[in-house]
Amino acid sequence: MIKKLLVANRGEIAVRIIRACQELDIETVAVYSEADRDALHVKLADEAYCIGPTPASQSYLNFTNIMSVATLTESDAIHPGYGFLAENPDFAEICAACNIKFVGPSPQAISRMGTKDVARETMAQAGVPIVPGSDGIVEDVDAGLKVANEIGYPVIIKATAGGGGKGIRVAKNPEELKKGINITQKEAQANFGNPGVYIEKYIEDFRHVEIQVIADEHGNTVHLGERDCSIQRRLQKLLEETPSPAISEEKRKEMGDAAVKAAEAVEYTGAGTIEFIFDHRTGDFYFMEMNTRIQVEHPVTEMVTGIDLIKEQIHVANGKPLSFRQEDVTFNGWSIECRINAENAKKNFMPSPGTVTSYLVPGGLGVRIDSAVYSGYTISPFYDSMVAKVITHGATREEAIARMKRALSEFEVEGIDTTIPFHIRLLNHETFVSGDFNTKFLEEHAIMEDSK
Amino acid sequence: MIKKLLVANRGEIAVRIIRACQELDIETVAVYSEADRDALHVKLADEAYCIGPTPASQSYLNFTNIMSVATLTESDAIHPGYGFLAENPDFAEICAACNIKFVGPSPQAISRMGTKDVARETMAQAGVPIVPGSDGIVEDVDAGLKVANEIGYPVIIKATAGGGGKGIRVAKNPEELKKGINITQKEAQANFGNPGVYIEKYIEDFRHVEIQVIADEHGNTVHLGERDCSIQRRLQKLLEETPSPAISEEKRKEMGDAAVKAAEAVEYTGAGTIEFIFDHRTGDFYFMEMNTRIQVEHPVTEMVTGIDLIKEQIHVANGKPLSFRQEDVTFNGWSIECRINAENAKKNFMPSPGTVTSYLVPGGLGVRIDSAVYSGYTISPFYDSMVAKVITHGATREEAIARMKRALSEFEVEGIDTTIPFHIRLLNHETFVSGDFNTKFLEEHAIMEDSK
Repeated sequence: MIKKLLVANRGEIAVRIIRACQELDIETVAVYSEADRDALHVKLADEAYCIGPTPASQSYLNFTNIMSVATLTESDAIHPGYGFLAENPDFAEICAACNIKFVGPSPQAISRMGTKDVARETMAQAGVPIVPGSDGIVEDVDAGLKVANEIGYPVIIKATAGGGGKGIRVAKNPEELKKGINITQKEAQANFGNPGVYIEKYIEDFRHVEIQVIADEHGNTVHLGERDCSIQRRLQKLLEETPSPAISEEKRKEMGDAAVKAAEAVEYTGAGTIEFIFDHRTGDFYFMEMNTRIQVEHPVTEMVTGIDLIKEQIHVANGKPLSFRQEDVTFNGWSIECRINAENAKKNFMPSPGTVTSYLVPGGLGVRIDSAVYSGYTISPFYDSMVAKVITHGATREEAIARMKRALSEFEVEGIDTTIPFHIRLLNHETFVSGDFNTKFLEEHAIMEDSK
Repeated sequence: MIKKLLVANRGEIAVRIIRACQELDIETVAVYSEADRDALHVKLADEAYCIGPTPASQSYLNFTNIMSVATLTESDAIHPGYGFLAENPDFAEICAACNIKFVGPSPQAISRMGTKDVARETMAQAGVPIVPGSDGIVEDVDAGLKVANEIGYPVIIKATAGGGGKGIRVAKNPEELKKGINITQKEAQANFGNPGVYIEKYIEDFRHVEIQVIADEHGNTVHLGERDCSIQRRLQKLLEETPSPAISEEKRKEMGDAAVKAAEAVEYTGAGTIEFIFDHRTGDFYFMEMNTRIQVEHPVTEMVTGIDLIKEQIHVANGKPLSFRQEDVTFNGWSIECRINAENAKKNFMPSPGTVTSYLVPGGLGVRIDSAVYSGYTISPFYDSMVAKVITHGATREEAIARMKRALSEFEVEGIDTTIPFHIRLLNHETFVSGDFNTKFLEEHAIMEDSK
């Protein structure tokens, strides 16, 4: 059983993990970079150790220093949070080699889902719907043209080692495809050290709908419903909600079953998310990718299911069976999360780091705040610009939206620009309120420009 | 339909009401005393008006000024919160006369429950269990001795116009009873202008268990389960929880049915609470009193039922039927509320007013904060010393307690003393953890003295 856990992360997710550990009576060890001496996760943990200079490669990604702290403090587990080391199979391997539990899936599961064409192939074999496209890597331009001819244009060219919106290119005709394959291969070689690309049908009008799954070491895999993350800007999610306004009870079951199959195909353990392209016009859905870690937007699932996902991750890491079965999972009401960042939406979301001179978070019924900011804290320019996740819960979508507008209107952050005004405008936008939108919503509506 | 609502209160309950109105798109009007110019409820409301000097009699209890603001602002409803005007039938009458909705029950219901011997009589007739005692007021000492002889000592002498721990006296034998009746009558005359006293069997070993009810104008009365408020100091509740560790499913139904009967007996509308003496050794329960208003501890009921009680009060005031029936009400998990006051528990809970120089509330899953305090706010010595209500929710009592300990440990209030350390000690006390305690818990355990 885990008695002491090292949190290999920073910001709100480090705070989130420390809180779960405190409630489970597990001692916590924080690590921090030189820029994070005054961070909240450092204050809240039982012990805290500096692991190096500000650049992540020298601190939060520094295997050696993190493993040294884990060993010296006799930590028996490491929780990687999201980002940094969370999806690094080598780090998971090192933990195993050092006899320290990695709170996450096996290195094998991380690897199989992390390599995009392998994941695609694995999903196809498991019977999970995938977007029509090439069988694995396309060898050359001619092979690509052949595939595109079969599935029809437009198509999307993807680097197998890419991710986060990088190494992706759309082609509307054979000319664009020829050029696109060549450029993407070169870029992929330069950026990821792997030139492999594959081709998929390009679906333009879709919603991003993902399914939360959790699995134990005893063969139980359960899904916890969907999250709709269609409100994105340059592939960065800004607002997430559950349930999805576009998903029926029947579709939830269908996608949930597919997600469970996907996880089982890689013998997945722990918490993970299967992201789907959901064609809301036809109801078809296709595997996009699996995130083999906890996600930023996990709280909305917690709000409607009542399940503490971080605690459940720790239970699974302890070798315990899940504390619920699929039939025990119920969904109550509606939950929305707004990611409040230190950015100026009017200036193209330019980061606005600096010292928060006054900080008063909203409270009351149905409002949850996950944040690592406090009055006097300086948001550094070196990491992501997250100020807080504001999560609301209500009986209906209407109530969750009204509660979010109320919460954001009383949220006081002084000294820096934030995306609070942007979110208030978004929540008032009639298309958002209607629930009928796709991932291009923010491209097509001038919310940023008008926000104050 | 209510479009604009005046909040005739201050502090966290005023903030709570304003939040509910904002979510319902109802405009809000705050009123404040000269001491409350910088109060949070003033900042959050759409409009705010000073109604007089600091003493409550000249401001928060000042009918004329409050009604003037209501009329001038064209408010169509007044929410009284708790305390101040909430249980004043005259104020409810004046609202009705001015054609302004009073968010609460009828003046008749307030009166019938506010006069203790009338309430007792009404309950007896309705078949709600009452503590054995006199039929109404005892005329003189001889009548009192006769009743006491029948029901057995010890007995309790209560002023019919008393309340809040005043006008109450225990007698263990005829000698004490004779003296007690005389003194209590004189005190009651002096303090309440009504010398009437009645006698009840004194039950020493009991839990304070109350039932939340809500009723509409269409004849629907529903109970929302119990709250256990046995952790008290001098009749002031310090920690409340639901469910009660002492109540079975069957007992909940039995007490719930009795509470519905009690409310129906006075044709009650709106939210109210029936307080019971619960004899946890025998399972018997007796009507104590009804609070004809929203209560400080209402959030724990909201956390387990998912029902927004303030919104539901407003719906009822609008003449709408309740949005649920008894069979729709479900109870999920466990919720605890700690009342954090600006007091020093080590110094006999001496108030500690002053300026809060730093204020960082806990957050994360299952933590709700209802507070009107902010960094730089000065807690005045003129009103109650509430800093915040910290409410946690968990799947089990164990989780709700663990979460509360975690939340309180990260709650930072600088510049004043608070009862946070007291509550942490209480939550760690093995008797509290066992769930087996009565209303004398704090008298019998030296928690205050030891707290830091």
